[in-house]
Amino acid sequence: MLKGKDILTTAQFSLPELNLIMDTAAKYEEKIKAQEIIRDLDGKVVACLFFEPSTRTRLSFESAANRLGARVISMANAASSSVAKGESLPDTIRTVDGYADIIVMRHPMTGSAQIAADNAQHPFINAGDGSGQHPTQALLDIYTIRKERGNLSDLTITFLGDLKYGRTVHSLGYLMTLFKNKMIFVSPPSLKMPAELTADFRNRGAEIEETDDLKSALAQSDLVYVTRIQRERFENPEEYERLKGSYIIDQKIIDEAKKGITILHPLPRVDEISTEIDDYEGAAYFRQAHNGIYIRMALLALVSGIKVI
Amino acid sequence: MLKGKDILTTAQFSLPELNLIMDTAAKYEEKIKAQEIIRDLDGKVVACLFFEPSTRTRLSFESAANRLGARVISMANAASSSVAKGESLPDTIRTVDGYADIIVMRHPMTGSAQIAADNAQHPFINAGDGSGQHPTQALLDIYTIRKERGNLSDLTITFLGDLKYGRTVHSLGYLMTLFKNKMIFVSPPSLKMPAELTADFRNRGAEIEETDDLKSALAQSDLVYVTRIQRERFENPEEYERLKGSYIIDQKIIDEAKKGITILHPLPRVDEISTEIDDYEGAAYFRQAHNGIYIRMALLALVSGIKVI
Amino acid sequence: MLKGKDILTTAQFSLPELNLIMDTAAKYEEKIKAQEIIRDLDGKVVACLFFEPSTRTRLSFESAANRLGARVISMANAASSSVAKGESLPDTIRTVDGYADIIVMRHPMTGSAQIAADNAQHPFINAGDGSGQHPTQALLDIYTIRKERGNLSDLTITFLGDLKYGRTVHSLGYLMTLFKNKMIFVSPPSLKMPAELTADFRNRGAEIEETDDLKSALAQSDLVYVTRIQRERFENPEEYERLKGSYIIDQKIIDEAKKGITILHPLPRVDEISTEIDDYEGAAYFRQAHNGIYIRMALLALVSGIKVI
Repeated sequence: MLKGKDILTTAQFSLPELNLIMDTAAKYEEKIKAQEIIRDLDGKVVACLFFEPSTRTRLSFESAANRLGARVISMANAASSSVAKGESLPDTIRTVDGYADIIVMRHPMTGSAQIAADNAQHPFINAGDGSGQHPTQALLDIYTIRKERGNLSDLTITFLGDLKYGRTVHSLGYLMTLFKNKMIFVSPPSLKMPAELTADFRNRGAEIEETDDLKSALAQSDLVYVTRIQRERFENPEEYERLKGSYIIDQKIIDEAKKGITILHPLPRVDEISTEIDDYEGAAYFRQAHNGIYIRMALLALVSGIKVI
Repeated sequence: MLKGKDILTTAQFSLPELNLIMDTAAKYEEKIKAQEIIRDLDGKVVACLFFEPSTRTRLSFESAANRLGARVISMANAASSSVAKGESLPDTIRTVDGYADIIVMRHPMTGSAQIAADNAQHPFINAGDGSGQHPTQALLDIYTIRKERGNLSDLTITFLGDLKYGRTVHSLGYLMTLFKNKMIFVSPPSLKMPAELTADFRNRGAEIEETDDLKSALAQSDLVYVTRIQRERFENPEEYERLKGSYIIDQKIIDEAKKGITILHPLPRVDEISTEIDDYEGAAYFRQAHNGIYIRMALLALVSGIKVI
Repeated sequence: MLKGKDILTTAQFSLPELNLIMDTAAKYEEKIKAQEIIRDLDGKVVACLFFEPSTRTRLSFESAANRLGARVISMANAASSSVAKGESLPDTIRTVDGYADIIVMRHPMTGSAQIAADNAQHPFINAGDGSGQHPTQALLDIYTIRKERGNLSDLTITFLGDLKYGRTVHSLGYLMTLFKNKMIFVSPPSLKMPAELTADFRNRGAEIEETDDLKSALAQSDLVYVTRIQRERFENPEEYERLKGSYIIDQKIIDEAKKGITILHPLPRVDEISTEIDDYEGAAYFRQAHNGIYIRMALLALVSGIKVI
């Protein structure tokens, strides 16, 4: 179903495709946990081109490719690339396309993923393009929700933090509208979910609530998706200092939340989730990061035409 | 024939060795295109030491090594090396020689390749040493000419651009004298092919022509090898601006050139070849870059004593 | 015996464990020299996290992992990591723990290895933590002594150079007290072996001598372990210039030393060993560096529960 395709945006997937990706990820997770040695991409070369450093995402893709038996060639930093000599992105991609069977790219420029995909004959996977898309993050997010909650419907989900600039919450919000869910948005006034997105989510059938009352939001939520509020987003540093404490998840907040609430975070976290709740069984953010391996294995395999049994 | 040998300069190869390298590359190209999984270097470790960044060359060597089944250990940047602690090149090489079965090195210092090879017991491959040699580039160039034109003799080849500092045109020019060819040199007056090289090529039997009339050169050429003219080469920036337009290959130039002319370029290009001719079937520069994989596979295999059938 | 364990300090090993590590290293050395292809860690992923650059140690670990059939994911430089975004070391480790089966880490902060190991469920190997421990160096040192001298007891060993800050001589000194040996310390007055270490070594049964007479020390030594004296260690640059010549090993010094004396150095060397003795058969420092591969293979295999036959 995805053989030979590019992975560019969260929005490109049909519901059957989403389910295929998650089911494939689940099969790989099972095999890895059973310490099975997988050779599905034996003989293949995956190029990881990171024009912007992102060690976490790069290591996750490289681990996924290696666990499938593929080999990896890697550029961790564009500073050392031909780009520095004035080469255009299309030229770089056309060259690397002859070195590898799949290209994974992270690039600071919004829209660069589409340009790259257009110039690659091999499958291309977007690992984040500026403020654009980061589809593998959203996919690992819903995969994690499905695993943690057992299903993807009839959930109440609070999105917390920077909902204006947070690319991950936009993509995940979109994906959750494909299922029947209620979403609650809790953020500083200056970092609210953009109105057009809220409208779009409503049009797609989602029940939406916006509030600044974190306590009551969590009292009814099955899941809270926390994002970091960055100091740089505030013109006024005092406003940042005043606000940030109101959006921290700690033991006290969890004690008053709905029992068994699941906590997600795209990581890295700084202090928006207190380490005192790391051992709480609903604290799923490290499991979430680990799920990235299985989702990325699934995508690398599916675009290569592998059917996992 | 090449087992255990170092690859240092273009000049080291006998004609039978050149043919063996190209024939081996052709066999690997066939296998890769047939998606055959190759294990010829299974169990071997290839060290890629880049004391000067060159992502394209590094990724090409790493892909080649991986496609042979070898494993790669890699230094993409000397800044982080023991060299920074004052270690000599011979010491670095003697150490890494114990970590790997083949050493590939790029280094900014002319002559460094010979020093390194002298200190390595394992085969050593020069991936470019300053203004010295870059033999794998010249090898992939002639392999490309053989593939694109069907043979390596009786060709008229125009070399265009910076012929003074262009290491690639020097090496390729030398190799082409091993066959019977005519070479036309077209360059700004200040960037002409060095007189001693021109004399040397003539002594080896090549027919040479020097001109600044690009149009008439291309009207009789089977092939044009384009190189970049760098602004830094001019004392007078105005002269650069005035000249650079005269050495650009675009659709109009191609329309007036010999029918079917093949265009090569070592890449990266900036604007010396217009993107409007990228789809012209004689535009072979990306195929040329891809051929680097097969040539490098051939060299890695041959110095390891592998005979490809 | 070491299955699932972390490798943190030299002091953690029992004598049977040390012997197991060295015996395992010896078996791998034999296999590698017989060009045997090893698959003991097939399907495993080893993460090499270098928060401080150390090309030599990183390439050695990566070669070792690859020679075992494992795959490697690698961070050569912390500048590009999530740490730059303010992530804590425990969070980084917990994330990477889900990407890999073994974590190897180098970090500039003393004590960081323990923190990392506490946060990893998979085996963790310390590749150097600041002025703390670098256990694989000490292990390859004693492995080299056993190979070069045939045994680890009844030796007279001179430690030369910076004995105050030299982490390697502290660890090796400790290990040598497990066997019955005499140690002679030769250093500038300001860079003497710390008194508490000397006392500790004596308490453990070692015979200790401190002197500034290098010649008489070497006349009775089976082995000299040389370390670099760094200019930065001296408040007074003139004192450095005055002293450094007294601690250089050259042909003249070797001519007057005990016949067959073995020379070790953790490398990189700058000028504390003259290159004129590199061909002397007792000059074992490059063999010592190469032994790092076998020791690291042994550790990676043993913590993974592999028994080598």
